[in-house]
Amino acid sequence: MVDGPDAPLRAAVVGTGLIGGSILLRLRAVGADVIGWDPDEATRRQARSAGVPMAEQLSDAVAGRDVVFLGGPLPTLPATLVEVAAATGAECLLTDVGSTKAELTAYAAAQGLTHRFVPGHPMAGTDRAGLGAALPELFDGAAWVLCPAPEGLAAFRRLAALITEVFAAGVVPMAADRHDAVVALASHVPHLLAGALAGAAERSPLRDAVRALAAGSFRDGTRVAGTPPQRTANMLTGNREQVLAALAGVTEYLDELAAALRAGDAATLHARYAEAGTTRRALAARRYDEQTRSFRTDVAPDDEMTWLCGLGLTGGHLTACRTTPSTVSYTVHLPHPTDPAAPLG
Amino acid sequence: MVDGPDAPLRAAVVGTGLIGGSILLRLRAVGADVIGWDPDEATRRQARSAGVPMAEQLSDAVAGRDVVFLGGPLPTLPATLVEVAAATGAECLLTDVGSTKAELTAYAAAQGLTHRFVPGHPMAGTDRAGLGAALPELFDGAAWVLCPAPEGLAAFRRLAALITEVFAAGVVPMAADRHDAVVALASHVPHLLAGALAGAAERSPLRDAVRALAAGSFRDGTRVAGTPPQRTANMLTGNREQVLAALAGVTEYLDELAAALRAGDAATLHARYAEAGTTRRALAARRYDEQTRSFRTDVAPDDEMTWLCGLGLTGGHLTACRTTPSTVSYTVHLPHPTDPAAPLG
Repeated sequence: MVDGPDAPLRAAVVGTGLIGGSILLRLRAVGADVIGWDPDEATRRQARSAGVPMAEQLSDAVAGRDVVFLGGPLPTLPATLVEVAAATGAECLLTDVGSTKAELTAYAAAQGLTHRFVPGHPMAGTDRAGLGAALPELFDGAAWVLCPAPEGLAAFRRLAALITEVFAAGVVPMAADRHDAVVALASHVPHLLAGALAGAAERSPLRDAVRALAAGSFRDGTRVAGTPPQRTANMLTGNREQVLAALAGVTEYLDELAAALRAGDAATLHARYAEAGTTRRALAARRYDEQTRSFRTDVAPDDEMTWLCGLGLTGGHLTACRTTPSTVSYTVHLPHPTDPAAPLG
Repeated sequence: MVDGPDAPLRAAVVGTGLIGGSILLRLRAVGADVIGWDPDEATRRQARSAGVPMAEQLSDAVAGRDVVFLGGPLPTLPATLVEVAAATGAECLLTDVGSTKAELTAYAAAQGLTHRFVPGHPMAGTDRAGLGAALPELFDGAAWVLCPAPEGLAAFRRLAALITEVFAAGVVPMAADRHDAVVALASHVPHLLAGALAGAAERSPLRDAVRALAAGSFRDGTRVAGTPPQRTANMLTGNREQVLAALAGVTEYLDELAAALRAGDAATLHARYAEAGTTRRALAARRYDEQTRSFRTDVAPDDEMTWLCGLGLTGGHLTACRTTPSTVSYTVHLPHPTDPAAPLG
């Protein structure tokens, strides 16, 4: 980790809902010196009664810390970032856990914080909310996106080391705008589809029978429609342009399926489902090849930046990051180049 | 059951894929005299090597049976029904497990088989296929739709008794066209959405990163896109008009969500997700009140028919059916009238 056993990591978590709370619990479990703060007084009381140290003031929580994790609702993050930056030293690493990255990344740059703020997004969660749902093992094996910047590469390396070691997550390096385009399709549009399916069922005159006959496809397809509505609304509005662009691709495919169905064209339906099934088979059979990749840290960061951002786009992730005074060495997992999955009958 | 212990039920299953195979295995497990047949020679051999009796000819499988379950691909069912009807006696109960009901019901009526053919649809399955995926407990607690007809009510009662006793399923009585409208929304449209989401991801230039960051919402929302394409194509084309009508309701809701997002209207997004979430909460918290309902069987069947078809539409199901020479008595589970679920924050 960043520090030796004689000097445990001093961390703070601001905003201790599901994600922030899980980060806090994990840091505590590995012996870090960690304290939390949440704007909600009941949450602070709940945490203390569970033996989790919580500060009464945000500034008390973050003062003198090595790293601060920023959680809480997406729209609150810019203001929280500024407040935490003002209450911490120039060496204090800052990161967030928001589900979109471009806006906050640009905001942090405008505030001159790029050298110590590393935008982050742990891809884990449940449809529950709040500290009561937090789990220290929530991030085990999960993807955790970090957005590196040339002027923040040292901070990125420190945080990548911490996240792989403490949380057992795979760090996916990715530019902020690419992250937002990817999660639009990998997370946000699925929330739109789930809402549309559950909402249409709710309005249907056959509603009660639909609930009774809800097949696995309906249950799976509506699950995230049960997410707290405010969280979903924040997530979608925080990534509006990318979500609408990704939705256009999905409705185009849906229109093709509907047109084939309307025409009674079973051959085209079959072909479209064979194509779609490739993604499912790829999800089920993901294999990785492990490599090590090193860079000198006393030269211009262009090669390292290019390699990192390319790695995330090709589906790879980091499982370790070790630094010496003049080098950084990443342990990398790259998707195994497999044969195209054979179409099913 | 239909017969006493001295005369075990004589059953046959024609078409021993996932559903038919699971029916066969369960009947065997409860001690019925059951034999299967499948048009695929390899399937017959596979079944025999697992100790499951299989006939070499369809007519040998069904001759002298009390009940025959018809499985296999949807488009094959009309021809199979005619062939099985010709090879069985007038007292032999016939039922199918196809995922749409109106077409086959009308076909059976035109063939003069309504008095002994009871259209059926067990609402269970996995995204796997074939006898190798069959499980004797597949229907435990599942909904199993049966379509009663005035001139086939005696057959309906016999089959309802058998299915509740042997398979521990809840029998949902429903008119064939209502069934098709309900499953269009409860099963078929979710397959369209899953196909569109997985297909759009497959075509995206960000495909590899989308796979790597696939959140639970994406995994759940695409699961049934991995169903064998031919099965999905048959299911959709077999219920074309109802699927397109249900899809129109879902795309209308999706358009409302997209319009609110485009306008940056977080309040409307919140309201639409609060509405959609009601269906999720209702799925999670289903409770039933048990009742018994009896009818005389020596009078016109209008009351019993009306009650049965209404029961399915209101989300109820049968867990037992007992007959005497002059009465039929159903054990009924009706959805508990709950307060409207409180909206979440």
